[in-house]
Amino acid sequence: MAAPARPIVFASDFGLANEWVGICHSVMAGISPQSPIVDLTHLIRPLEVQSGALLLADSMPYIPEDAVILGVVDPTVGKDREIGIATSSGRHLVGPDNGVLSLAWEAAGGIDAAVEITSPDVIRSPHAQSFRAPDTLWPAAAHLAAGRALDKLGPAIEPSTLNALTLPEPEISDGEIHGEVLDFNRFGNIQLNVRESDLERAGLEDARCLTIKATSASADARRGETYADFAPGEYGVIFDERGWIEIVRGNPESALEGLGLSPGHLVWITRSRVP
Amino acid sequence: MAAPARPIVFASDFGLANEWVGICHSVMAGISPQSPIVDLTHLIRPLEVQSGALLLADSMPYIPEDAVILGVVDPTVGKDREIGIATSSGRHLVGPDNGVLSLAWEAAGGIDAAVEITSPDVIRSPHAQSFRAPDTLWPAAAHLAAGRALDKLGPAIEPSTLNALTLPEPEISDGEIHGEVLDFNRFGNIQLNVRESDLERAGLEDARCLTIKATSASADARRGETYADFAPGEYGVIFDERGWIEIVRGNPESALEGLGLSPGHLVWITRSRVP
Amino acid sequence: MAAPARPIVFASDFGLANEWVGICHSVMAGISPQSPIVDLTHLIRPLEVQSGALLLADSMPYIPEDAVILGVVDPTVGKDREIGIATSSGRHLVGPDNGVLSLAWEAAGGIDAAVEITSPDVIRSPHAQSFRAPDTLWPAAAHLAAGRALDKLGPAIEPSTLNALTLPEPEISDGEIHGEVLDFNRFGNIQLNVRESDLERAGLEDARCLTIKATSASADARRGETYADFAPGEYGVIFDERGWIEIVRGNPESALEGLGLSPGHLVWITRSRVP
Repeated sequence: MAAPARPIVFASDFGLANEWVGICHSVMAGISPQSPIVDLTHLIRPLEVQSGALLLADSMPYIPEDAVILGVVDPTVGKDREIGIATSSGRHLVGPDNGVLSLAWEAAGGIDAAVEITSPDVIRSPHAQSFRAPDTLWPAAAHLAAGRALDKLGPAIEPSTLNALTLPEPEISDGEIHGEVLDFNRFGNIQLNVRESDLERAGLEDARCLTIKATSASADARRGETYADFAPGEYGVIFDERGWIEIVRGNPESALEGLGLSPGHLVWITRSRVP
Repeated sequence: MAAPARPIVFASDFGLANEWVGICHSVMAGISPQSPIVDLTHLIRPLEVQSGALLLADSMPYIPEDAVILGVVDPTVGKDREIGIATSSGRHLVGPDNGVLSLAWEAAGGIDAAVEITSPDVIRSPHAQSFRAPDTLWPAAAHLAAGRALDKLGPAIEPSTLNALTLPEPEISDGEIHGEVLDFNRFGNIQLNVRESDLERAGLEDARCLTIKATSASADARRGETYADFAPGEYGVIFDERGWIEIVRGNPESALEGLGLSPGHLVWITRSRVP
Repeated sequence: MAAPARPIVFASDFGLANEWVGICHSVMAGISPQSPIVDLTHLIRPLEVQSGALLLADSMPYIPEDAVILGVVDPTVGKDREIGIATSSGRHLVGPDNGVLSLAWEAAGGIDAAVEITSPDVIRSPHAQSFRAPDTLWPAAAHLAAGRALDKLGPAIEPSTLNALTLPEPEISDGEIHGEVLDFNRFGNIQLNVRESDLERAGLEDARCLTIKATSASADARRGETYADFAPGEYGVIFDERGWIEIVRGNPESALEGLGLSPGHLVWITRSRVP
């Protein structure tokens, strides 16, 4: 009996208002129709490669080890190599060689093998230079999901030649963290580029309340575990499921609106004098 | 031969802009990859438990009897019991014990058995207190869909101890209904908390035209069966597929804009003097 | 062994904020649970039949030949015949008889057979006049996907009696094209109703730079193949994957904002005097 088709996990900045995601799924249905497709999200901020790279890496603990993961945020589409990666954990990655996959392959155990996707057996023809996903990346992912070997997609690439991202780390000093806003959600919660280990490095891990200062406003935010730990309107700090510090505010208020923050804005975190 | 995996129906207020829905699907793909997943919607208004509860209940006639239904709107996430319910119709329900499932189990024939989801065989570890769906609720739903028995998820709960919602009913008097706006859609149609039986109780079932009065504006709305029954700009009243009164307006006008209404706003319905 | 279920491709103007798409999928999960469902998009501009018809036709090269395609944009829902179409390419189409399928059946090789969907074995009951998709169109599509013959859906229709759309063609004169904006996307790229053959008919195919003039603004736009061919802020013209001219602008600028255009706006295209 044939092994069941592997799942495909798909993240992009394509948006939902046009047919881009749909025709990618359509191409897939013709190659590996029994593969479950997981749409991680298609509303990554347009052209923000780092945001897509972080999302893919942080999602790895939730992604099955037999998955093929397709990540597309590609400001220079048509100019990048298109690559397939085998990771040590067993997952395959497919996408442009612009760094968007680089945090994911680290989170998935590192690179076992890499190829450039060039095989005429894989690439659809004719195809558009301005929209490569349904013609190159999706056929490659679908063939992998259906059981084809990585080295059938094209020639091997030396891993050291792949583009990798360097993340902007927060600046840590004794008692102070200088970070920035990564993202926010529809509940008004704010995600910072600060992890639990950063709190420890700054000597703030035991602070029961932190002062969050931005150029627009500031607030004292109490440590907690979940949204319901805070009174209406009260600011709080929790760790989200991806491991980042999240600034929240007790329902029905929005931390995002209260602090006037947006992605990329700077924040300073110190120990609060409030007990 | 193994029975095919049961479908899972998923509704939440998670939104589509981040990875929350996607990592839930990812977890699922690792446990019951051949279960069809139906995303009912993930744009329930944030934290509105009643809105989610109504959506689940009203959708029941469209949901297969072998489905596992997962409903998550959870303002106090991490503080609620997490529950699995077997209904008399055969459908299972999974979600927080905050009432969001309560209208659905009534619509699905009542409760046969209830458990609290605590089994270490089901719950992923480590897990986040602030985002329980991928760690507790989805594994529970996926195991049910793959054939596991309800009582393997955790200890039985006495159904009378479950939280249930009481709906705000419209006030009915002779010739007048005092209701409120439940929701609206992208066509500008307005859904009220008023059903056909309420028209009968008010003695308005034979009225060919109704006056809809709000604090912002009012309109005479003719009874019809479908949107195309009304001339451009004309107001009308139909019943939607969920059984609620819907105030509509002939294309290309929007009833929502014309009347200046939003969810929660009050409306008075009387017999129109217009013939 | 049974043949695997055929994929279903679904496009509509239903939006994503309510349960309409979800209950369609739910109905499907009860009839042909192993059919892959492809959501092409559900954000077609509300009630714009022509926009939906173009989307379906342009997507055809990406859609498997065994697919059942369901297209719903229906301003006069409940008043139209509901139809099933067998095309010469093997694909089936299902939708209202208002023209929304007509460009798709041309793109799929023409009509082999057409029926009106009336069979009580197919239509769910009771059903709502104002929302036909889950009661009539989806059961019909799901039964086709599960292997039922087209003529079991209802009586044959003479194809010449079906409603078909006529597209607004651009006006072409020597050296000038007078077209209009069809659509745009989240990157601010603008799709015009102008194809490569129109450039040839106007004698503009060799122009390395085109002047795009609108009532709001104008710009000189260089020909290229992909977004990355243009410097930041520079206007460009490429062909998108659907074969339409797309006006783009080098990252991070938006052509849509720069030119102040919206769908339906008029544009004049001539040879630019800029080299």
